[in-house]
Amino acid sequence: MKTSNKAAKGKQSLDQVSELTTNRLSLYLRCLNVLEGAGEQTVSSRSLAEKFHLNAAQIRKDLAYFGEFGVRGVGYYVGDLKRHLRQILGLDRKLRVAIIGAGNLGLALADYPGFRQEGFEIAVLFDTLREKVGQTSRGGVPIHDVADLTTLTRCDGIQIAVIAVPEAAAQHVLNLVVAAGIRAILNFSPGTLDVPPGVKLKSVDLTVSLESLSFFLAQGEG
Amino acid sequence: MKTSNKAAKGKQSLDQVSELTTNRLSLYLRCLNVLEGAGEQTVSSRSLAEKFHLNAAQIRKDLAYFGEFGVRGVGYYVGDLKRHLRQILGLDRKLRVAIIGAGNLGLALADYPGFRQEGFEIAVLFDTLREKVGQTSRGGVPIHDVADLTTLTRCDGIQIAVIAVPEAAAQHVLNLVVAAGIRAILNFSPGTLDVPPGVKLKSVDLTVSLESLSFFLAQGEG
Repeated sequence: MKTSNKAAKGKQSLDQVSELTTNRLSLYLRCLNVLEGAGEQTVSSRSLAEKFHLNAAQIRKDLAYFGEFGVRGVGYYVGDLKRHLRQILGLDRKLRVAIIGAGNLGLALADYPGFRQEGFEIAVLFDTLREKVGQTSRGGVPIHDVADLTTLTRCDGIQIAVIAVPEAAAQHVLNLVVAAGIRAILNFSPGTLDVPPGVKLKSVDLTVSLESLSFFLAQGEG
Repeated sequence: MKTSNKAAKGKQSLDQVSELTTNRLSLYLRCLNVLEGAGEQTVSSRSLAEKFHLNAAQIRKDLAYFGEFGVRGVGYYVGDLKRHLRQILGLDRKLRVAIIGAGNLGLALADYPGFRQEGFEIAVLFDTLREKVGQTSRGGVPIHDVADLTTLTRCDGIQIAVIAVPEAAAQHVLNLVVAAGIRAILNFSPGTLDVPPGVKLKSVDLTVSLESLSFFLAQGEG
């Protein structure tokens, strides 16, 4: 099992493995939170799969890649596995996030409850509009002038930038963010962006989600 | 090749196939738009893969699943393939979308440029707040009272609902949307929701995107 697992992975780039696997690890972490909330101490890959409509073999494979967390006859200790997953995902320390663009999207993201729950701290919003600078989001995240991006990134220890500006400004903002020393960027702007090596860009294309619903509707009609 | 492809697929649920494959088809469609914009008439799976950092074998496999679109020695005709993909994804007709929740997120989604580009029409926003009802988004999408959801869904031919309300209200809104006859739902609220059979729910968990960046940063430090 282990050999074929490794062989299959060898064909994919490391980047693809990270992307697909970390998305699943994030999902497992959410499921473990639910189990912990319900007072469960241990869980098998099979019951985890059944409860949350996951694939048990995939769970075992994903977790085995990062070490042996399962205990024969027991399954996984919920608390232990949660701690391991948070460590693998780098969530065992608070990550400070800046959002560039304090329009509707930026403001919505600043107060998105899921981020805080998982240990991300939205420290600051940036905008160029004079009437926005000095205000805060409804949840209290301060809006600063984008001219102060480099200074605040260093002072506040910002490690992740979220780009929530119109498409026409996105590449310029990305360049500013990279120049400020940020190496991990989440982009909500449509269109492709150039990133220098050593910087990780993750783009969220909301249209893709709608298209999978469109496909579902089209199949139903066919 | 074809047999092993089918065999591999047999192991996954139809739902998983749709999800993963349609996400890739959406991506191919975006790449073809770029090529068409650049005046390209034909493209091989290899050059498509090289230009956009995709996997050539995966492209051939994905497209072969829906029919034989390639021409030996030519590759794919860009315009033809685009038309086929749009048809498979159900994008050959306009789909009308309603957004429930006219907060920052709902308003941002209503004016998200990607949706319109791909043939989705954000027809209406719904909210419960008296001061919002009767207003429009910056892009001109009208905000109606959620009490009129069923009526407007039928009159306007709404086929997709987007849930952009706080977590506490999400299940209630989902029930309203389903009762109004909508079978395809895109959910931005954190937490799990129950859906009746025959209804497709796609949840966008924005935290997952941030966690893959956190993983990247953690690997760099390790």
